[in-house]
Amino acid sequence: MKKLAILGSTGSIGTQTLDVVRQHPDEFAVTALAAGRNVALLAEQACEFVPKLVSVQTKELAEQLRGRIPDSVRILWGDEGALDVATHAEASFLVAAMVGSAGLAPTLAAIEAGKTIGLANKETLVTAGHLVTDLVRKHGVPLLPIDSEHSAIFQCLQGERVEQVRRLILTASGGSFRDKTRDELAGVTVEAALSHPNWSMGAKITIDSATMMNKGLEIIEAHWLFGVPYDKIETVLHKESIIHSMVEFTDRAVMAQLGTPDMRIPIQYALTYPDRLPLESEPLDLIKMGTLHFAAPDFERYPCLGFAYEAGRKGGTMPAVLNAANEVAVSRFLAGEIPFLAIEDIIASVMAKHQAIAAPSLDEIVATDAWARRAAEQE
Amino acid sequence: MKKLAILGSTGSIGTQTLDVVRQHPDEFAVTALAAGRNVALLAEQACEFVPKLVSVQTKELAEQLRGRIPDSVRILWGDEGALDVATHAEASFLVAAMVGSAGLAPTLAAIEAGKTIGLANKETLVTAGHLVTDLVRKHGVPLLPIDSEHSAIFQCLQGERVEQVRRLILTASGGSFRDKTRDELAGVTVEAALSHPNWSMGAKITIDSATMMNKGLEIIEAHWLFGVPYDKIETVLHKESIIHSMVEFTDRAVMAQLGTPDMRIPIQYALTYPDRLPLESEPLDLIKMGTLHFAAPDFERYPCLGFAYEAGRKGGTMPAVLNAANEVAVSRFLAGEIPFLAIEDIIASVMAKHQAIAAPSLDEIVATDAWARRAAEQE
Repeated sequence: MKKLAILGSTGSIGTQTLDVVRQHPDEFAVTALAAGRNVALLAEQACEFVPKLVSVQTKELAEQLRGRIPDSVRILWGDEGALDVATHAEASFLVAAMVGSAGLAPTLAAIEAGKTIGLANKETLVTAGHLVTDLVRKHGVPLLPIDSEHSAIFQCLQGERVEQVRRLILTASGGSFRDKTRDELAGVTVEAALSHPNWSMGAKITIDSATMMNKGLEIIEAHWLFGVPYDKIETVLHKESIIHSMVEFTDRAVMAQLGTPDMRIPIQYALTYPDRLPLESEPLDLIKMGTLHFAAPDFERYPCLGFAYEAGRKGGTMPAVLNAANEVAVSRFLAGEIPFLAIEDIIASVMAKHQAIAAPSLDEIVATDAWARRAAEQE
Repeated sequence: MKKLAILGSTGSIGTQTLDVVRQHPDEFAVTALAAGRNVALLAEQACEFVPKLVSVQTKELAEQLRGRIPDSVRILWGDEGALDVATHAEASFLVAAMVGSAGLAPTLAAIEAGKTIGLANKETLVTAGHLVTDLVRKHGVPLLPIDSEHSAIFQCLQGERVEQVRRLILTASGGSFRDKTRDELAGVTVEAALSHPNWSMGAKITIDSATMMNKGLEIIEAHWLFGVPYDKIETVLHKESIIHSMVEFTDRAVMAQLGTPDMRIPIQYALTYPDRLPLESEPLDLIKMGTLHFAAPDFERYPCLGFAYEAGRKGGTMPAVLNAANEVAVSRFLAGEIPFLAIEDIIASVMAKHQAIAAPSLDEIVATDAWARRAAEQE
């Protein structure tokens, strides 16, 4: 029986993780859950899975939980609450699925506490890749990717040696606006941006998919997860999102992982790794699909891809700036404050103002993150 | 330095194996070569690689070799010569690439002699799968697939457990006549049949590809190689031959191996397994390809597929009958004796006349093979 703590249990990855747990009650139990502001759903989850501990964002929200969940469940809140969830003594596995840079500190604490990490939070590796990978090595804990692309690459690398990798090839759907020109992008609405063709995801990640910043962040994440230089990481547009990513080896053999777009597959793989368990999921039917399409990503059409390579190669605090400026710009777009294309302008402008600090400490990352957020608000 | 013996060195797989050796002179050496009747090419190979031993089909051919190759190279002939090549004391690895059922006896001898087997000869597993797999287990020798489909599946299974396989999915190009109806097939010529759209192969295998008997034999081979029941082995038409085959696991994740159609990739993988080495080969360019197509195999259009499942499920001597009747029918077609569609009629008719012997001995397989050949000649 594997005991899980989940950061972000009411989000897209969190709820799907609980669905995997629901399918395998003899294999997994839930020990601790942290959510943000969705008290109603967290209360339901706490009643169904009866964890030892739950945590929400504020004390007020915590008080709303009381009386709605079993008395045996301890209730905490805030950063400390999230930290206690991430490091709960009874859990051996942390699903780090909190959106945004708030997931970083509790994830680092969980690594120090020796937990196996199922990582769905992109910002952890993007902003602090060197700290996370050092810490993982030091504590000898497995860091297992949960998003579909990195899980695909991780699966392709089973039984292989990373020194024999020639290229990682991340596939990208191209997002909700993939058939629009840049001119057409100028006036797109929030509503249109949020309808992703293949995956049902959160709002932030759906916008990141439309700008391809999502892929940009994944490139940086892949660099840290697999220890592969940026020159060996490529993307290919693949609108069906059936091939989740690929690895080319020195002998020109290419391994790929395919499947219907169902996030529960990579979530469950992280939970069962190196084994697999049955999963009630739509089987892949290539015959019904008929065709799979591939195209080159256009760096002029998707400037965020170029920003990400630039930030990754500069290293130090620059990826944190990329990420923070993007988070703010996306939320300003979602709030109706700025047009879609201004997301890119803001990121470029904030990056241009930043002088990267090499090998930054966690404090320096946090300070840079805060600076970049302020700068992005003022653009 | 890995020392190789090659059965069938002048054939398609044999020459490509030697090309792999040529690319890695520090990794591989050639100890013994057996060919059929192509004395000129074998002489060239012997001069280039200077093995300890070569063998050809007859004494007369052996005499033609003398004086044309270095004096240090011993020359043998016939079944005994092939057996000596397969079991040469200095070789640790046998590439079993002799076409047809003649490859069976020397391959079994090599397994008994403890050689690692790189298996390109389909008939070995098709006609004697139970004997070969028993012997491989008994002697603890690796049996590594060399054709592209089984190598793909073998690569997909690295780091995985075969109990967690839900389906093996063999891809099939559909062969040189894939766009023709059965009516159009009635009058096709030998010449047209021999032009395969994707792969450059021998004549027999090119015809087998057009009837899909090739895929049928691969299904039986996959059953024995991977210990997977027939119900879990499927085929999908994929005309580009880029995805070489796939494995679906219990969690609905599908692993695939892709690449340009270059047989040297699976050959080299068998030689370097579990490692990989660089190979000068055309890289896969999915962006240039643009699209990959998939379609259901039509069992009425390709009756040989159904014959193969039937023979595999009946087991015992029935796959040997399938294979022998097919070999004779194909050579009768190639000789201009029978029309293309008569290949299928002959196989069906010879299978219908045979009462399968369960768990046959090698002698019973050989006798059944001879009977089926006579029967197929007389149809």
